Amino acid sequence: MMNLKEKVCIIGSGNWGSAIAKIVGENTERHSDVFEKEVTMWVYEELVQGEKLTEIINRQHENVKYLPGIRLPDHIVAIPELTRAAAGASLLIFVVPHQFVKGLCDQLRPMIESLQQRTIPIRAISLIKGMSENARGISLISDVIRQTLNIDVSVLSGANIANEVAAEQFCETTIGYRVLDHGMLFQKLFHTHYFNVSIIEDTTGVELCGALKNVVAIAAGFSDGLEYGSNTKAAILRIGLMEMMRLCRLFDPHVKWETFLESCGIADIITTCYAGRNRKCAEAYARTGKPFDVLEKELLNGQKLQGVLTAHEVYGFLESHHAVEQFPLFRNVYRICYEGVKPQELLKGL
Amino acid sequence: MMNLKEKVCIIGSGNWGSAIAKIVGENTERHSDVFEKEVTMWVYEELVQGEKLTEIINRQHENVKYLPGIRLPDHIVAIPELTRAAAGASLLIFVVPHQFVKGLCDQLRPMIESLQQRTIPIRAISLIKGMSENARGISLISDVIRQTLNIDVSVLSGANIANEVAAEQFCETTIGYRVLDHGMLFQKLFHTHYFNVSIIEDTTGVELCGALKNVVAIAAGFSDGLEYGSNTKAAILRIGLMEMMRLCRLFDPHVKWETFLESCGIADIITTCYAGRNRKCAEAYARTGKPFDVLEKELLNGQKLQGVLTAHEVYGFLESHHAVEQFPLFRNVYRICYEGVKPQELLKGL
Repeated sequence: MMNLKEKVCIIGSGNWGSAIAKIVGENTERHSDVFEKEVTMWVYEELVQGEKLTEIINRQHENVKYLPGIRLPDHIVAIPELTRAAAGASLLIFVVPHQFVKGLCDQLRPMIESLQQRTIPIRAISLIKGMSENARGISLISDVIRQTLNIDVSVLSGANIANEVAAEQFCETTIGYRVLDHGMLFQKLFHTHYFNVSIIEDTTGVELCGALKNVVAIAAGFSDGLEYGSNTKAAILRIGLMEMMRLCRLFDPHVKWETFLESCGIADIITTCYAGRNRKCAEAYARTGKPFDVLEKELLNGQKLQGVLTAHEVYGFLESHHAVEQFPLFRNVYRICYEGVKPQELLKGL
Repeated sequence: MMNLKEKVCIIGSGNWGSAIAKIVGENTERHSDVFEKEVTMWVYEELVQGEKLTEIINRQHENVKYLPGIRLPDHIVAIPELTRAAAGASLLIFVVPHQFVKGLCDQLRPMIESLQQRTIPIRAISLIKGMSENARGISLISDVIRQTLNIDVSVLSGANIANEVAAEQFCETTIGYRVLDHGMLFQKLFHTHYFNVSIIEDTTGVELCGALKNVVAIAAGFSDGLEYGSNTKAAILRIGLMEMMRLCRLFDPHVKWETFLESCGIADIITTCYAGRNRKCAEAYARTGKPFDVLEKELLNGQKLQGVLTAHEVYGFLESHHAVEQFPLFRNVYRICYEGVKPQELLKGL
């Protein structure tokens, strides 16, 4: 038997992608029996003060734009061409804004199809939060990767604000798998003493938790902006969790209840609803009355707010299932974000 | 059939007891077909600026000492003698510090025994947080009431910081019952548009949640005092919830998983770990190193911190079940509170 090692490519290099690159780089070195030490990272090329970001990362070992102040392992190699970054990789980590996934997979497809005879199969894991819309209302990012590349895809999600992970503050995360061996392999790739990885056989539950919690965080932000107290906020989080659980089971009856008790469930709801940017922008919306696109410019440098997008996709899904009225919190968030309803209506019908 | 109405007595008049008196008074008036409007409230008599507290409450309709600024319904009648307050009552609401329950029940016992031939039986509900110790490690407050008075006892617990409830901010709560009719009757007595009551057939789960969450809040306070971030705190809350669930099942295998998804479970953990006084004192402990009895004097007017007491009782229970090492968070909180271990050891072995 040949001793082929797993070769890792990280597709994406934002705040979360860079924090993950630090962990993955530490682990490919630690578990050198399993992984090739060198990790490639596909970086969307841009100029930072006149210099290419890939060149800065490869020289300074720091993503000065998206994760300043954190040193990346020297063997993280930034590459601006996607197919060159992914060439030879057996493990693909997707960590890009969800709207770019399809295009990136289309670029990778010819190469991966030609490699299906490799000894080590290619497997992927998605760290992407969000979902896309289709005729049924919701489609999963991991399904886009699966269907485009015809490979197995696991999912990672948890209470993981990127800067805190990069600072090595203790937290937990959850990997949802379909193939146990792949779940265990990715656990080995991501687990550290400060980043505690659990695995569960439920990719759909883990992925939907990561997307839906942002809708709950919008509600939590409204609650803060309206200066409701901590009992009310706790009730919103609890009701949000219940609606997440019911929506997941409506989407796929195989989603497990236990998934919601993992880090990707309650813990991520808590951290997102107390410290995340969806909460922050929604609070500003309730306080100032400024439209979300203005707040996105002011607070997020123009980036789209995930929870507001997801609220739209969720509402479409609920409508197509004639189930809107069974999800009053998701309904109210949608109506406040898209139909001009006042934030003061947040608790209506809960 | 005689049209006998339920007569309510509230035993206790602290911050939470007074907030509950407001709700109960509103509901006995609203549901006058079921309840006698007048509600008696046993008040531990004390002097406030030279005047008896019962007299102030009955004249001003305000508990100026424990819930200042909140008007109580005029038909809440404060009475300093316990047996006079409870005379004729069919529904007893216990809301006193847990160390006083046994003595109060002993006082009530002769009267209640002599009344067992009444048409309407006497039923109780406990709103008390905490537990007492016995040879087995833990005994429930509701069991003390049940065994002393030989009556059915329901339990109410939830994400209910008293001042916010008194200010009519929306929240939820949970009633655990053994007899469905009693659960529904108490739901009618407590439910309002801002205090949303769910019922579940699980008194033990609801009661243990109310006690154990304070131990988790001590851990959350240490985390804040150590300036750990929000991922870490979310992990502590999640691990705390898991240990609560496992401890409850070790105590009584009939406790239901669903109970932990009610307000008494996750929602109460959240509000207690973000806004409660157990969290606050534990944060001060980690920051200042002052002993808990000093902090109790400085921050709680000498009142004992519930979570620190409960950590002791829990540890005794776990020791007697040879299960300490399966509960690392509860173990670490105990060791920090009682064995001089540094708060920095909080995450050890999680």
